[in-house]
Amino acid sequence: MDPQTAITGRELILAASAIGAGLAMIAGIGPGIGQGYAAGKAAEAVGRQPEAQGDVIRTMILGQAVAETTGIYGLVIAIILLFVQPLLG
Amino acid sequence: MDPQTAITGRELILAASAIGAGLAMIAGIGPGIGQGYAAGKAAEAVGRQPEAQGDVIRTMILGQAVAETTGIYGLVIAIILLFVQPLLG
Amino acid sequence: MDPQTAITGRELILAASAIGAGLAMIAGIGPGIGQGYAAGKAAEAVGRQPEAQGDVIRTMILGQAVAETTGIYGLVIAIILLFVQPLLG
Amino acid sequence: MDPQTAITGRELILAASAIGAGLAMIAGIGPGIGQGYAAGKAAEAVGRQPEAQGDVIRTMILGQAVAETTGIYGLVIAIILLFVQPLLG
Amino acid sequence: MDPQTAITGRELILAASAIGAGLAMIAGIGPGIGQGYAAGKAAEAVGRQPEAQGDVIRTMILGQAVAETTGIYGLVIAIILLFVQPLLG
Repeated sequence: MDPQTAITGRELILAASAIGAGLAMIAGIGPGIGQGYAAGKAAEAVGRQPEAQGDVIRTMILGQAVAETTGIYGLVIAIILLFVQPLLG
Repeated sequence: MDPQTAITGRELILAASAIGAGLAMIAGIGPGIGQGYAAGKAAEAVGRQPEAQGDVIRTMILGQAVAETTGIYGLVIAIILLFVQPLLG
Repeated sequence: MDPQTAITGRELILAASAIGAGLAMIAGIGPGIGQGYAAGKAAEAVGRQPEAQGDVIRTMILGQAVAETTGIYGLVIAIILLFVQPLLG
Repeated sequence: MDPQTAITGRELILAASAIGAGLAMIAGIGPGIGQGYAAGKAAEAVGRQPEAQGDVIRTMILGQAVAETTGIYGLVIAIILLFVQPLLG
Repeated sequence: MDPQTAITGRELILAASAIGAGLAMIAGIGPGIGQGYAAGKAAEAVGRQPEAQGDVIRTMILGQAVAETTGIYGLVIAIILLFVQPLLG
């Protein structure tokens, strides 16, 4: 077998990293649902008390920021897999 | 084996990148559900207080923008896999 | 092995692109649920306040448009995989 | 190996297209849930205000039409994979 | 290798079509949930206003018919894969 064309273990790891990076992004489902729920409840609250708009939005944004974290974790792992490639010794 | 026709490691990485890009898009389920919830609550609020329409819609759009982020993360990872191809040394 | 019949790397990438395109469409689950929720809440609001129908429908459509985006991202990635084929150098 | 019986790359692409087409249809989960929710809320609204039936049903159908789109995107990608076969050069 | 026992590309395509047909049917989760929700809300509405039964049922059936569509899309793709076999040239 010609070493030029054979699949090496290094290349198999990189191929699996591409799939792993894609899988990691699926975590984004959670923040997307949760933050949208927060946005919906905030819109409902502003409709009831328009004068409290500033407080409602500040609370929504703060809560959404916390909900964002797991989506960012997924993004960080994907970027590590794609660019840092720690599995290649 | 003819080197012209054998599967190389480089090609395996690119094949895995196609699957990884598709997987990353699945993140879009989240923003779709969440933003729709926000839209529903906003429509409900406008039905109750049509005069607060501007405030309600502004709050909805702001919250939906935050909920969009993880969908964009998935899109960015897919585009990196398809066009930047960082796993090819 | 006859080079005419062997599977080449190019063909493996195209096969993976077909699977990647299918996976990307799964994102459509989200907008479908979210937009339907918005439609339900809008129908409910119109039943209660038929005179606010215009405002309710405008809010629903605006919010649904935002919820559509991640479904369109998935469609775009699928079309890129099927027709642009960026992974073929 | 007899070239008549070996698996060619062309056949691998077609096999993957069958799986990709099936995956794309999974998107239909979303519109099914969302449109059913809209139908339920509309039935509830009509039960409360039978005289608003026309307005409620019009709002429901309009919102459901938007929710249908991502299901149709999935169907279109499946039909392209099965009949247009763009991955076969 | 005996050509009688080798896996041909044609057989690989048919095998993948079986998997694709099965995947396509997963779409049925959506209409099942959504239509059941509609039926539940309609039953609730009829319980509250038995005199509005005709209007409630008409609205429910209309909305459920729309929710059925993506389930039918999945069925059609499965039947095409199983009987039309467009991927076999």
